[in-house]
Amino acid sequence: MRFKEVYLDNGATTMADPKVVEAMQPYFTKYYGNPSSIHSFGTKAREAVEEARIVIAKSINASPDEIIFTSGGTESNNFALCSIAFSNKGKGSHIITTKVEHKCILKTCKWLEEQGFKVTYLDVNPEGFVNPDALEKAITKDTILFSAIHGNNEIGTIMDIEALGKICRKHNVYFHTDACQSYTKTEIDVKKQNIDLVSLNAHKIHGPKGVGALFVRKGVKIKPWQRGGGQERNMRSGTENVPGIVGFAETVKLASRKRVEHMLRLRDKLIKGILEIPGTKLNGAKGDKRLCNNVNVCFKGIEGEAIGALLDQKLICSSTGSACSAKELEPSYVLLAIGISHEDANGSLRLTLSRFTTEEEIDYTLKVLPEVVEKLRKISPFGKALDFIAKKIS
Amino acid sequence: MRFKEVYLDNGATTMADPKVVEAMQPYFTKYYGNPSSIHSFGTKAREAVEEARIVIAKSINASPDEIIFTSGGTESNNFALCSIAFSNKGKGSHIITTKVEHKCILKTCKWLEEQGFKVTYLDVNPEGFVNPDALEKAITKDTILFSAIHGNNEIGTIMDIEALGKICRKHNVYFHTDACQSYTKTEIDVKKQNIDLVSLNAHKIHGPKGVGALFVRKGVKIKPWQRGGGQERNMRSGTENVPGIVGFAETVKLASRKRVEHMLRLRDKLIKGILEIPGTKLNGAKGDKRLCNNVNVCFKGIEGEAIGALLDQKLICSSTGSACSAKELEPSYVLLAIGISHEDANGSLRLTLSRFTTEEEIDYTLKVLPEVVEKLRKISPFGKALDFIAKKIS
Repeated sequence: MRFKEVYLDNGATTMADPKVVEAMQPYFTKYYGNPSSIHSFGTKAREAVEEARIVIAKSINASPDEIIFTSGGTESNNFALCSIAFSNKGKGSHIITTKVEHKCILKTCKWLEEQGFKVTYLDVNPEGFVNPDALEKAITKDTILFSAIHGNNEIGTIMDIEALGKICRKHNVYFHTDACQSYTKTEIDVKKQNIDLVSLNAHKIHGPKGVGALFVRKGVKIKPWQRGGGQERNMRSGTENVPGIVGFAETVKLASRKRVEHMLRLRDKLIKGILEIPGTKLNGAKGDKRLCNNVNVCFKGIEGEAIGALLDQKLICSSTGSACSAKELEPSYVLLAIGISHEDANGSLRLTLSRFTTEEEIDYTLKVLPEVVEKLRKISPFGKALDFIAKKIS
Repeated sequence: MRFKEVYLDNGATTMADPKVVEAMQPYFTKYYGNPSSIHSFGTKAREAVEEARIVIAKSINASPDEIIFTSGGTESNNFALCSIAFSNKGKGSHIITTKVEHKCILKTCKWLEEQGFKVTYLDVNPEGFVNPDALEKAITKDTILFSAIHGNNEIGTIMDIEALGKICRKHNVYFHTDACQSYTKTEIDVKKQNIDLVSLNAHKIHGPKGVGALFVRKGVKIKPWQRGGGQERNMRSGTENVPGIVGFAETVKLASRKRVEHMLRLRDKLIKGILEIPGTKLNGAKGDKRLCNNVNVCFKGIEGEAIGALLDQKLICSSTGSACSAKELEPSYVLLAIGISHEDANGSLRLTLSRFTTEEEIDYTLKVLPEVVEKLRKISPFGKALDFIAKKIS
């Protein structure tokens, strides 16, 4: 019996790195000034924010003045879509996105439709990729924006944003990508990939909850969405979350290729081990085209929720569907979009690793999971059918 | 010479209470789960958020399910106004506010005007109060919302929200108050005061930056403004800032009448001492009708900016205008709204105390400030005129 949880729900949120928490501390009680204050005490907070901005900018090959700090990925995505839509009404009112976006993109698109915008939701293939030709076909002279998730939060598919960005640039359509899951895990180069806007956040990568950023390329026509005191070069008002911003930059500094490779190796070991269980199937893309920390598997004939509950009893944290808002009972629309049946979608489980995940934790999971699956299948109609077939054959 | 700053800019932001920072710590690295996750590790985070919600609700005589956590006061104010406006289009399109609101209210109103809403900006009297009769006269059958700041961030005036709330209720108009400066300093009772929506935040009261709340009375017609995963009973999406929310509740628990009285006493000592300097005048309301931590004084003939700069050299942190976004050179619109001349508005300085302010710090300020004023007046035309008059008289 374990006494410490095996946390394999890093797609939902991650543990803040103790070094990150340490870096934040002085900004709570020592350098606690308001960055907008003109006295030297405010200046210290301002300097910390600007240093953090340089770190974030550099990590995606942007300029510091192209980074706007926000309260997180959801705000960044709401901000990007709503603001581009309202600021570019003169140009057009058509937006394109995909069927596998995070809910904060899809629900914002639905709201924009209520406000008179037209939205096209592109299909994806069985691995979760958008066909660049389909994007090109969907673009009309009324199109102002294409928004696509970079690393999919459920199935881990890494969209080919370079190919998609090229098409957007060619047709003079703004390209936004939601990189909350992929950031620091796979390359984001806003210049090479022709990206106009990128949503980033901290709490998926061992930073604090409540802080994120939006990259907006210089020259993009955009107005503030949260209005007020004029912070963030008047693009996002509200007193800057200084400790959060400092922690965000710290965690980005701690990311490395070596840590990605560690996750990749453990991810592949976990996938290999799970697929040895009969009646299993990997959902989403493979190899390098999949996020280094994402495993999403369908277990035939049983419920993902039930697997999760039994794993929880063994102190393994997992999730079904999108873990950001897991308390829903409908099957995942992302799994349905890649052509998986309702039944199989309900039988799917997501296990998401982090750079703190250990080999021993993966071994433990691979010991527990087959037992859990076997137990559930014994009591499921599917399990009984399997038994029946086995007896017939023998 | 002092070696530690005298921080009299608590209207801009405050030091996080070390007890608050301590209370937050476990939620960074120990109970770091996502409150929306269904495993027991997520449940621990969920419990912390719900306990915090009870604390905030109780402090304003609300129910926990009437509290929505946000990223801060600016978001709460944007959310309240935009969401009420868009959700009640069927009822009407007229909003009433005042000329002395925080910029996040005024700029949001300007944006709503661009979206087709009509906004009336009520005048205030020389102390900064709205006349309840003027509110009643401004209400039409098209009015959906009245928004008024509770404790003014610049001049400290505490609006009579009970009288204003009564009128709104009588005419079936939603009443929103921005209580970011007044919260925990003067009573907020949403039932007694007939309030429908209240904006609150943490960083003005020794909580962390990046967290706030919006109270929305049960039955108020409102839709989410930040859309996504459906957190906060679907009213405000985005992963909850668990450590921030825990810290917010902790700081509210630490507030007390005794601490308010401490600030009151030092505030009155500071006001009395400053008004002994010739050519000074208190801006805003007096006594109990003024925030316990706010001092705003006009110094005839010199610039507030210059006073602030010299005080800063003596390690005293102050501000001019609204300190949330102090890097502006126009005179404060709040001071102009209470009938102060451009020149006098430019000669005004805000000193805002906290419960950590000590008597010794006030004594030091009262020693330094007259010297600074004298020095500046010596080089100002006003000072020279004073000398001239003095010589003429003698």
